[in-house]
Amino acid sequence: MTKEIIGGSQASVASVAQRARIAARALARLSSECRTEILMAAAQAIEDASAEILEANARDCRAAEPAVASGAMSSATFARLRVKEAGIAQMAEHVRGVAGLPDPLGKRLAATELDDGLVLYKESCPLGVIGIVFESRPDVVPQVAALALKSGNAIILKGGAEAVHTNEALVSVWRKCLSRFPSVPQDSINLLLTRSDVKELLEQERFVDLIIPRGSQSFVRFVSEHSKVPVLGHGEGICHVYVDEAADIEKAIAITLDSKVQYPAACNSAETLLVHEAIAGEFLPRAVSALRNAGVELRVCPRSLAILGEDGLLAATEQDWETEYSDLILSVKIVSSMEEAMAHIHRYGSGHTETIVTENAQAAKQFLDEIDAAGVYHNASTRFADGFRYGFGSELGISTNKLHARGPMGLEGLTTYKYKLYGNGQTVSAYSKGEKKFKHRRLE
Amino acid sequence: MTKEIIGGSQASVASVAQRARIAARALARLSSECRTEILMAAAQAIEDASAEILEANARDCRAAEPAVASGAMSSATFARLRVKEAGIAQMAEHVRGVAGLPDPLGKRLAATELDDGLVLYKESCPLGVIGIVFESRPDVVPQVAALALKSGNAIILKGGAEAVHTNEALVSVWRKCLSRFPSVPQDSINLLLTRSDVKELLEQERFVDLIIPRGSQSFVRFVSEHSKVPVLGHGEGICHVYVDEAADIEKAIAITLDSKVQYPAACNSAETLLVHEAIAGEFLPRAVSALRNAGVELRVCPRSLAILGEDGLLAATEQDWETEYSDLILSVKIVSSMEEAMAHIHRYGSGHTETIVTENAQAAKQFLDEIDAAGVYHNASTRFADGFRYGFGSELGISTNKLHARGPMGLEGLTTYKYKLYGNGQTVSAYSKGEKKFKHRRLE
Repeated sequence: MTKEIIGGSQASVASVAQRARIAARALARLSSECRTEILMAAAQAIEDASAEILEANARDCRAAEPAVASGAMSSATFARLRVKEAGIAQMAEHVRGVAGLPDPLGKRLAATELDDGLVLYKESCPLGVIGIVFESRPDVVPQVAALALKSGNAIILKGGAEAVHTNEALVSVWRKCLSRFPSVPQDSINLLLTRSDVKELLEQERFVDLIIPRGSQSFVRFVSEHSKVPVLGHGEGICHVYVDEAADIEKAIAITLDSKVQYPAACNSAETLLVHEAIAGEFLPRAVSALRNAGVELRVCPRSLAILGEDGLLAATEQDWETEYSDLILSVKIVSSMEEAMAHIHRYGSGHTETIVTENAQAAKQFLDEIDAAGVYHNASTRFADGFRYGFGSELGISTNKLHARGPMGLEGLTTYKYKLYGNGQTVSAYSKGEKKFKHRRLE
Repeated sequence: MTKEIIGGSQASVASVAQRARIAARALARLSSECRTEILMAAAQAIEDASAEILEANARDCRAAEPAVASGAMSSATFARLRVKEAGIAQMAEHVRGVAGLPDPLGKRLAATELDDGLVLYKESCPLGVIGIVFESRPDVVPQVAALALKSGNAIILKGGAEAVHTNEALVSVWRKCLSRFPSVPQDSINLLLTRSDVKELLEQERFVDLIIPRGSQSFVRFVSEHSKVPVLGHGEGICHVYVDEAADIEKAIAITLDSKVQYPAACNSAETLLVHEAIAGEFLPRAVSALRNAGVELRVCPRSLAILGEDGLLAATEQDWETEYSDLILSVKIVSSMEEAMAHIHRYGSGHTETIVTENAQAAKQFLDEIDAAGVYHNASTRFADGFRYGFGSELGISTNKLHARGPMGLEGLTTYKYKLYGNGQTVSAYSKGEKKFKHRRLE
């Protein structure tokens, strides 16, 4: 593989972005069948290039060993970097899964007859060029390439330096596969190689429509603050489980445990447990015992301490309510009412996912209506906040923004729409002068 | 009216924004009927306060007279500042019109049964707090107040200094009206008074969800560059009329004229006329004669000059293709193909509204499919790009952004959505372990 096929040092980021813009226009013209066919071919190409990808990954892993030995790279990061044979099969399966999703393009979102012979359609279409800046997981490459192509978008990727050979191999496989389709430009998928390229990418507002940063909070914040291109990404995930006075205790314990321990590093895991005072005496001792058995460290409010005793429990500080632990730590607070729980969530929550455990349907309705978050749940674990679990087939990330895409972001988040107006010579002046009047009849 | 009822100097912008956030939560709880009732009451209140509003406006107009005399304020700006008795009636009528629109909240956008007893709904809900920074037209106040309240959002307004008394009077009428509804906080509508307040407003990303700047391009750009809060607004409107080789000449002349002269200061008026070479000889002389009769100055390409002769025509420069004249000026270019026209539009257009005039349905389809703009029209004037004309009842502006809202922005642009998940104790671990499988059945 040569440098120029993946952009990088021989081509400026601006020229990569400009070529991606041209490629995106070609992608937008492809039929649904053609986009599906390309994804099926890419899945096959990934399997066929298995040896090449594993070899590139072995180079990355060897290069990372000193960092792991010195402690500069965590074993979790190293594990995410490593690609195994089964991982290749999974990548291919994932791409086939996206291929099989319904086409997100050309959907008629609204139709209005403005007047006789003047009809307005609102139709979904691709965003254009999407920049994705991510950290060390190479399986992000086929995932986002598949989502982007399925939705008719070109992409510019920048992965972590640790995974550079693996990412190069994967992008090269995709580009080689695209080269077999005469109407599909290879510039539909591009890989940037250096950190300074990222800064330049954030300046390409003329050619790039959206930047999606995937990584640490500080990284996402850096990208948001420095980008001239619109950014969508998840910020923090400070999720709460609220156990209402009318909760079923068994459900409450199961949901609390799952929300905290099932995968504590995920953004949709819970950081704070809020408990109604009327049920705290019965619920908290059992819940705390189950959480501690699962290795969870607890930081609790004074009222909880009074119920639980001080044995091995830490007192929660103000700081705890606003911390995303991403670890086996949970803060606990007793509240006097659901209103107090909702006020706490609005004050400290990040608008990601909030759940209420209750058998009182009226309380559940109020909580789900009033809480301002991407996901509001009744009697379910916060861990369900995920594109695959929501049935999107795949996800690009979870947005805690309120604009454009909120919550798990799949194919739909990669589309916009345009208004198509069909007339037969109509001018506005006739309507301004009152000679004609709009009908505004909704079609269908 | 005292300062504190409209925010301003006695209250910091941060505290105004924080109170607006609290007010927004109360608004989100109101029923559709209640929101409609408030708007009907506000319309009546505006009519009842007619004398008060006209008097405040007379003060603003008197204060502006020296600026008009010295030429510092254009007569067009002064005309927009002045409110007449009929203007008050129009404001009230407009508010009643918004009151009568369908409720944009609580709409079920999707429903999926993830598994037995685990159902996910995607439902529309308000954005929260919206900041609107606009220039001298006081009729913006009731317009955006009505749209915001109808969609359950609180607003923070900052109008032009010239209109300060009129804006204060209008906001005061709204707040007094709101005070008659016990469940509706007056902080739902707020007015900031100084330029430095705007800067502070752009910093309130914790309490404000969206900023909409309405005004000059440089003003919109300033806001976009300095805001920590997401910004939606229209940038430039460089719209094209493309007259295809298969155009009907009469339609082409009517559409070109309307797109340019019907209201040249509007962002949806055309700046460049592109003409297929095969029809230029027949079409251009007639079109140019009609345009010149309407007072339009023309700046034309060398091939057009050759057809038209040099009598009174200016040669277009590169600069012309990228200029939004907002005036009775039109640039003209002959192209050899529709592909050349589309390439010109993609290079110089601002993604606002583009129209093709042709009797060839296939060419129209290709143009509408391939052109990347908020509005793509066949045989209709670019001037139709407007929320009222599209049947939205009212508009907040026209977005040339591709994210969240594209094209004319009405009530829908002021909403987001949340995912509501109803379960009965489900945890993710059962699905992770493979004990349970998702069904992902689309409902309805």
